[in-house]
Amino acid sequence: MLPESSTIQTQLDDDGVLVLTLNRPERKNAFNDEQWDTTADTLRQANEDPRVAVVVLTGSGGNFSSGVDLSSFQANPEPRSDGFESAFHAFVPALFAFEKPLIAAVQGVAIGGGATIPMACDFVYAGESLRMRLPFANLGLVPEIGSSYTLQAAIGRQRAAELMLSAEWIDAARALEMGLVARVLPDEQLHAETLSKAREIAQWPISALRAIKQTLRTADQAGIEAAIRVENEAMGRLAGSPENIEAVTAFMQKRKPDFKQFRTKGRT
Amino acid sequence: MLPESSTIQTQLDDDGVLVLTLNRPERKNAFNDEQWDTTADTLRQANEDPRVAVVVLTGSGGNFSSGVDLSSFQANPEPRSDGFESAFHAFVPALFAFEKPLIAAVQGVAIGGGATIPMACDFVYAGESLRMRLPFANLGLVPEIGSSYTLQAAIGRQRAAELMLSAEWIDAARALEMGLVARVLPDEQLHAETLSKAREIAQWPISALRAIKQTLRTADQAGIEAAIRVENEAMGRLAGSPENIEAVTAFMQKRKPDFKQFRTKGRT
Amino acid sequence: MLPESSTIQTQLDDDGVLVLTLNRPERKNAFNDEQWDTTADTLRQANEDPRVAVVVLTGSGGNFSSGVDLSSFQANPEPRSDGFESAFHAFVPALFAFEKPLIAAVQGVAIGGGATIPMACDFVYAGESLRMRLPFANLGLVPEIGSSYTLQAAIGRQRAAELMLSAEWIDAARALEMGLVARVLPDEQLHAETLSKAREIAQWPISALRAIKQTLRTADQAGIEAAIRVENEAMGRLAGSPENIEAVTAFMQKRKPDFKQFRTKGRT
Repeated sequence: MLPESSTIQTQLDDDGVLVLTLNRPERKNAFNDEQWDTTADTLRQANEDPRVAVVVLTGSGGNFSSGVDLSSFQANPEPRSDGFESAFHAFVPALFAFEKPLIAAVQGVAIGGGATIPMACDFVYAGESLRMRLPFANLGLVPEIGSSYTLQAAIGRQRAAELMLSAEWIDAARALEMGLVARVLPDEQLHAETLSKAREIAQWPISALRAIKQTLRTADQAGIEAAIRVENEAMGRLAGSPENIEAVTAFMQKRKPDFKQFRTKGRT
Repeated sequence: MLPESSTIQTQLDDDGVLVLTLNRPERKNAFNDEQWDTTADTLRQANEDPRVAVVVLTGSGGNFSSGVDLSSFQANPEPRSDGFESAFHAFVPALFAFEKPLIAAVQGVAIGGGATIPMACDFVYAGESLRMRLPFANLGLVPEIGSSYTLQAAIGRQRAAELMLSAEWIDAARALEMGLVARVLPDEQLHAETLSKAREIAQWPISALRAIKQTLRTADQAGIEAAIRVENEAMGRLAGSPENIEAVTAFMQKRKPDFKQFRTKGRT
Repeated sequence: MLPESSTIQTQLDDDGVLVLTLNRPERKNAFNDEQWDTTADTLRQANEDPRVAVVVLTGSGGNFSSGVDLSSFQANPEPRSDGFESAFHAFVPALFAFEKPLIAAVQGVAIGGGATIPMACDFVYAGESLRMRLPFANLGLVPEIGSSYTLQAAIGRQRAAELMLSAEWIDAARALEMGLVARVLPDEQLHAETLSKAREIAQWPISALRAIKQTLRTADQAGIEAAIRVENEAMGRLAGSPENIEAVTAFMQKRKPDFKQFRTKGRT
């Protein structure tokens, strides 16, 4: 009944916990179009499936996700039948429309979408190996998936600004101290402990879990929608800008980007 | 001048600190209609009384409150002259309409309303014996008294979701670490230390305290009102649902509730 | 190109970091009209100057700032050509209109505006000598510069209420623990470490930094504007009130203020 894909694994247990595993370990679980679409489909179906009480989102091979798979990125994607601009753009509303508890279990690399998707979940358990990064400044871009809102809602205005503006790496201890993750566990216990908490939640009535999430979401719905609008507008302006092209080119050429060249009169 | 009741004690000192003590220790200070009404009346009168600068809300007998007294709960209460559906529904706006500093001093059991009322106060001092719980998922219900908003505003979006969805017990150390309470003190010092902080605040002009609280409330007024609306709507839908009836019946029968029976097609 | 003033120093380095130093150490960098205006002008020009990527705001002589210089305060200031009521009122919108990263490096005394200006910055690094205070209750007044919002956004609703209502002193360790500052450093390392983080940020494209800040500000713009409106309205009501005059008179006469005289029928 739940979507099948070679790169997304799903496992539903008798307690009503569905584990959704990003499974392209050789690419550090970077998202390509198939993964965006399958994850979105899985969430949509899990939302309606009475056997599913809670979803745990995790990655295989020791990493959560390195974000968008740039190697599969298409500047001018083919038109989609659902009307969305891209698989990524179709994924975001599906993520926020999921009405049951959604827990992220993250370890290893969690960068870009690999960091902002967990922030859109209800809460996050982390393995000690976590290395998280919001690389948008570094890429000449802006936050995505509502993270300009969700990050502040999780860790406060100041800490969010420091992380977003500096694009610094965040380890598990700092993520916990700031409230970016709810718990840090040894990597080998991450799966079991997250499942244990998921089952604790899954024992309650789905009607109540759904309603509790609805009441909690009342506080942030408008903020997340506004954030996504402003993010998308800014992303449209900056993607493909000279700064963004320099960032991507330098990354490909394995050199440091030179953004100072753009500090000339007329550009501020 | 202040309301009298056998189950609510009030004591006003020369510094302008009014201590309002929930006093049904044999019921762990569970709220019955008389307590909802007397607490609301006390807050209304304290708001107008020029001798009162600060109110401290606490419980007697080593517990704060176990929330609604289910044994006094009436499914179809008599109509009230104030137009509110119940004493509980009349209490909530009185709590948020109180314009002077309101400090909760909590210890022992703080469950349901015993947890959400402190969250509606300006801040909370806790004794080391604190055992707090948001039991709504467990009861097949949703948060109340605006706590779906106030909890997130105090401790952030992620931690709030974990506590609300799992209905887990929270001890004093965790409550402090998350920012759910401002300070933790040995139980035997809780009363004296809270009074000391209350008197520190009570030395300032009441006009300024009222205006400072007004500026702080500007940030959350709309959020709290929206939360209460959505909470009430969901509570009306879930109270008396098969899941809620199973929760209450299992509690009375001292057995574990079986919510899995409801995971059938057509109910999600 | 950047404004010059004896009481505001500016230094721009090759990395694009502009350090703006409040420089009236003999008055603990209290703000007079010239400082409000020069700081506002510097921010306006730095916003347009393509050489500036990041601004660091700091104070000289071991203190950040003791806030408004009461000795230079004029009850009925001369009309200003910019239409603002005072230099202070012209400064506030200039502060929030600055679109590039703004970091505060604070140590020693940070009181009143010296505490609320850092809260309006993107984040704050603090020296161990920090002694911060929000003295508004003590003065019979209310928070300013949107701090009734920004403080809650940084540290949560409860902790903000405790600090604002009690006007207590805050040291560096507590400020860090609450999230009021992002990092605490030994005083002698504060300047170097803040510069180092500022340069880390300044390496990224200014277009992205500006856009990231825009996305982050989406979450708080309306809240800050509403806070400033309510703060100004309340400040207009309370400045010059008997309570405020007693506070200022007691301060001048080096005695404890007596606010209890105002607790009479008709004043609550």
